[in-house]
Amino acid sequence: MALTGILRTGLVQLRVLDFEESLVHYRDRLGLSVVGKIGEDRIMLKSFDEFDHHSLVLRRADSPGLDFFCFKSLDKQTIDNIAKKSKEEYGYPVDVMTGHPGFGEITFVTVPTGHKIGFYWEVELAAVHPMLVNPHPWDKEPHGMGVACLDHALLCGPNQGETVRWFTDCVGMSITEYISTPEGDGHICTWLSGNTRGHDVAILSYPEPGKIHHLSFQLQSWDEIGRAADIMGRYNISVDAGPMRHGITRGQTIYFFDPSGNRNETYAGGYEYFPDHPTRQWSADHVGEGIFYYSKELNERFLSVLT
Amino acid sequence: MALTGILRTGLVQLRVLDFEESLVHYRDRLGLSVVGKIGEDRIMLKSFDEFDHHSLVLRRADSPGLDFFCFKSLDKQTIDNIAKKSKEEYGYPVDVMTGHPGFGEITFVTVPTGHKIGFYWEVELAAVHPMLVNPHPWDKEPHGMGVACLDHALLCGPNQGETVRWFTDCVGMSITEYISTPEGDGHICTWLSGNTRGHDVAILSYPEPGKIHHLSFQLQSWDEIGRAADIMGRYNISVDAGPMRHGITRGQTIYFFDPSGNRNETYAGGYEYFPDHPTRQWSADHVGEGIFYYSKELNERFLSVLT
Amino acid sequence: MALTGILRTGLVQLRVLDFEESLVHYRDRLGLSVVGKIGEDRIMLKSFDEFDHHSLVLRRADSPGLDFFCFKSLDKQTIDNIAKKSKEEYGYPVDVMTGHPGFGEITFVTVPTGHKIGFYWEVELAAVHPMLVNPHPWDKEPHGMGVACLDHALLCGPNQGETVRWFTDCVGMSITEYISTPEGDGHICTWLSGNTRGHDVAILSYPEPGKIHHLSFQLQSWDEIGRAADIMGRYNISVDAGPMRHGITRGQTIYFFDPSGNRNETYAGGYEYFPDHPTRQWSADHVGEGIFYYSKELNERFLSVLT
Amino acid sequence: MALTGILRTGLVQLRVLDFEESLVHYRDRLGLSVVGKIGEDRIMLKSFDEFDHHSLVLRRADSPGLDFFCFKSLDKQTIDNIAKKSKEEYGYPVDVMTGHPGFGEITFVTVPTGHKIGFYWEVELAAVHPMLVNPHPWDKEPHGMGVACLDHALLCGPNQGETVRWFTDCVGMSITEYISTPEGDGHICTWLSGNTRGHDVAILSYPEPGKIHHLSFQLQSWDEIGRAADIMGRYNISVDAGPMRHGITRGQTIYFFDPSGNRNETYAGGYEYFPDHPTRQWSADHVGEGIFYYSKELNERFLSVLT
Repeated sequence: MALTGILRTGLVQLRVLDFEESLVHYRDRLGLSVVGKIGEDRIMLKSFDEFDHHSLVLRRADSPGLDFFCFKSLDKQTIDNIAKKSKEEYGYPVDVMTGHPGFGEITFVTVPTGHKIGFYWEVELAAVHPMLVNPHPWDKEPHGMGVACLDHALLCGPNQGETVRWFTDCVGMSITEYISTPEGDGHICTWLSGNTRGHDVAILSYPEPGKIHHLSFQLQSWDEIGRAADIMGRYNISVDAGPMRHGITRGQTIYFFDPSGNRNETYAGGYEYFPDHPTRQWSADHVGEGIFYYSKELNERFLSVLT
Repeated sequence: MALTGILRTGLVQLRVLDFEESLVHYRDRLGLSVVGKIGEDRIMLKSFDEFDHHSLVLRRADSPGLDFFCFKSLDKQTIDNIAKKSKEEYGYPVDVMTGHPGFGEITFVTVPTGHKIGFYWEVELAAVHPMLVNPHPWDKEPHGMGVACLDHALLCGPNQGETVRWFTDCVGMSITEYISTPEGDGHICTWLSGNTRGHDVAILSYPEPGKIHHLSFQLQSWDEIGRAADIMGRYNISVDAGPMRHGITRGQTIYFFDPSGNRNETYAGGYEYFPDHPTRQWSADHVGEGIFYYSKELNERFLSVLT
Repeated sequence: MALTGILRTGLVQLRVLDFEESLVHYRDRLGLSVVGKIGEDRIMLKSFDEFDHHSLVLRRADSPGLDFFCFKSLDKQTIDNIAKKSKEEYGYPVDVMTGHPGFGEITFVTVPTGHKIGFYWEVELAAVHPMLVNPHPWDKEPHGMGVACLDHALLCGPNQGETVRWFTDCVGMSITEYISTPEGDGHICTWLSGNTRGHDVAILSYPEPGKIHHLSFQLQSWDEIGRAADIMGRYNISVDAGPMRHGITRGQTIYFFDPSGNRNETYAGGYEYFPDHPTRQWSADHVGEGIFYYSKELNERFLSVLT
Repeated sequence: MALTGILRTGLVQLRVLDFEESLVHYRDRLGLSVVGKIGEDRIMLKSFDEFDHHSLVLRRADSPGLDFFCFKSLDKQTIDNIAKKSKEEYGYPVDVMTGHPGFGEITFVTVPTGHKIGFYWEVELAAVHPMLVNPHPWDKEPHGMGVACLDHALLCGPNQGETVRWFTDCVGMSITEYISTPEGDGHICTWLSGNTRGHDVAILSYPEPGKIHHLSFQLQSWDEIGRAADIMGRYNISVDAGPMRHGITRGQTIYFFDPSGNRNETYAGGYEYFPDHPTRQWSADHVGEGIFYYSKELNERFLSVLT
């Protein structure tokens, strides 16, 4: 009973062009901490309020983008069920990665949008994690923007509808909101939650497979959004849009770019979702308001720049 | 998978001495809306961000206090399982209430702390609820303190340990935090969550059965806590403690009293809990810091005034 | 000693196309209160935290724009000195208006940018004003965006340098910040303060005389800026830019339009200026950053839409 | 014209018992920076948003308390006038200190409450000060509580009325608020402003001369007040009261103690005062509400612990 199965976004691997400038961005500005290296081409990081070994891997590569996106699960049974059903009923490729530092087996399903979605349940407690005995809210004051944890991602690719069906039917998530196509024959974009967040993942219909629109990091308040914006302003981080509110999920947000061109989001607020809540529906002509609640107009970059 | 079983605090019935001053308090100050009356001695209210028919019932009586405290559940099976196990394994009284306006059957278990804990899953959509089609964050601007929804309660009574065991074993909640007795042979107080809140209910060891320390209403930010405090100051609402932060749950809070003497709380923030998170432990000598994180000292009223 | 001479922006008359929609905007959304009418074509309004009779006059006209912009002064001597010097040393037209409801004489100087700048010192205490005996922060909870008072305006016209010289030499204001022309032979825009605000008025070089870029209303915090943005989003108020911070003055801001096309600003924060502070200087290539601190790019509307 | 004469609180010398723990408090927690030492027994500090050489001197001594409290003035004439009038009309001792590092002459007047009130106008620009060319809001991110500058002090001593008269008549300040004695024959406490702050100094009637109730540091928002409280909680700084709002001045505040027992305040908000605003009046029976707007009760420590 209570929260079962899939818990939350827990591990993401992003491609970046350069380590030095990426560390300035993710460590010094967003406020993550470096956990260590994997070989020569990967760096592990985590946020101050996460318990698990690490949550973000930056891999040095020739082009930016997403390698994989994983959910922490409560138990092995959940993952076995997803793997079996994905293979047998959906016919999706399933493979298992072992040996990722600090993590047990990670089971990957390649979904029709072209993304590798992973699931794991065994992971070591991080060396530095929130206090447990007579705990202070934080032990060492968060630095930079002080992001608390990974929050969600917006993934883009073809076959949006199929992938959404898999997320609901096979992974057990709920559709919290969606934007209908103008013809009303499907969704342009669908928001999915497996906990009480407005979304753990959103799936946008897009011709190219395996793309990521943004990876989102959690902040605690509109005020922290404002402080994050000040840090972006101070250090000339390229801001795409915001500070603003989304109509969809009600989240308070800034979109900005890492030095490699990956879009990040700092995200706060948003409603507390429960699976008995009705699904919220958006018509295609309200998409501007749904994403950019204040200006009500998408900027061009928002729709065209993906990695 | 995902959030199953028990969803959240959904319906509470409180006793109040007088309707007129109670409506000024709960409707005009906290910002609830009146849904209607049940007979002559009960008024139904709800918060602006709740979907269900109503969430708070005020019953006119000779003394303040709690009549019952209910959780919304995802399905009938969850409730049947709890009822069966409570009766057969725990030997606790179970009874069913029908005919509560807007609600299907409510199944009550009387627990050893002396409280009637209810469970229901069928309830009508409220006449006024959050928007669902191209929704604005709110349709009509929230008034007063603008509380969003019920959050949790702190219940007090004897047999704390037994009741906690029932909440974990039978209801499926997790212990998020606890304060040990000085002797280390049990808990003074235990915080329990069935979703991602730091707590849905907390159980305090207390000699008298069936008592409530406070009923908590959710706000969205420290800034809303400040605005709520301004409203309390303006209208001479009796403030018990705060604005402050709790060490336990990290929530930002104000304790105050309704005109009948029931303690209310406006609560915001707090960490996002997941059931894979380790339990946080407090020793008895840190209880001041756990509750009153800034002053680190409980006031006397906090420990002695219950209804 | 202390604050002398010119106190603050105190009375502004704007032209609007329609009263009904203007009242929805200024009264219901910004949160001003209607004080009364002057004849058939003017409405007087004030903010909740102002003591004086009224501060904003909306005049029904065929085109939007600014009629006049007035400063409250501490005494008659200040105004007499300004009038005399403006006439004798500057040769600027000076005229006196009497009979404005609630106000004593208002002395107007027409400056080379084409604006009528007024000065007055006698004004009646408003019927509804902040409490004075055992005062609450507010008596009746502010509604809508809850703007506290007028803050400043950005005026546009030719002869920027001359008008700035008059504001410093004749009115006694200080230059807090300026943007140099690319050639370095003058200012594109100059910010001027007569108290501790980052600016009471700013003067932008522009070919057409007598134009206003925006009239600014004061809010108290970034959080109030966010709530104002929510109200703009809810009621489809046309947002020009923001929420954001200015590099210049550090103010936190939203630019938006009233139904007649006049640009408004809700403004909070900004540093506390003192006349011993050095003047801050901006080069022409940093103008984007100076105004739009986060995006660092002006939008086209910002530069072209004036009334 | 505009702001003349006395500008603001600019230099304060406090006595502390120990340097090491005082530096942890003022430098690491409040977020001041060390400017240097004066001999072996004094340390100079400043806040990130101050332009002048330094603003706080900590002097190592056997008992805590205030050595002197100084105002920055706009010019020499202001100070000469105050000195002359203080000596000739008031008969107060006047002495001049030279050689204070970074400062020109400081002229002290010893007032009947037993405090040394200083005035200076020449001071060097600090080595590290707010940016002036294409300035960012901050160059290096503020640390700790990030106090912006000195704000005000509450001074306590006998002859409150005489000292207040001197502050208004001789220094040129305005009375913004006062609490009447129960008999109505004078003030228990008076708040005085020489700029747009709700107060630069307040004078409390107290039998012992030369006492300080608290020295106040400026923060920018209720949110910064909350973050300051979190830092106090984390590092076991002794909190006296708050976070809360004052009825008087409307400021948002926390009172807490430095390791030597001097009371500090972090202060934000409060109204923008202008000298044409009416004086706000409090009756003695509303003193609790005036200071502790939420609880409406002074704690005993507040009235008895002074240094």
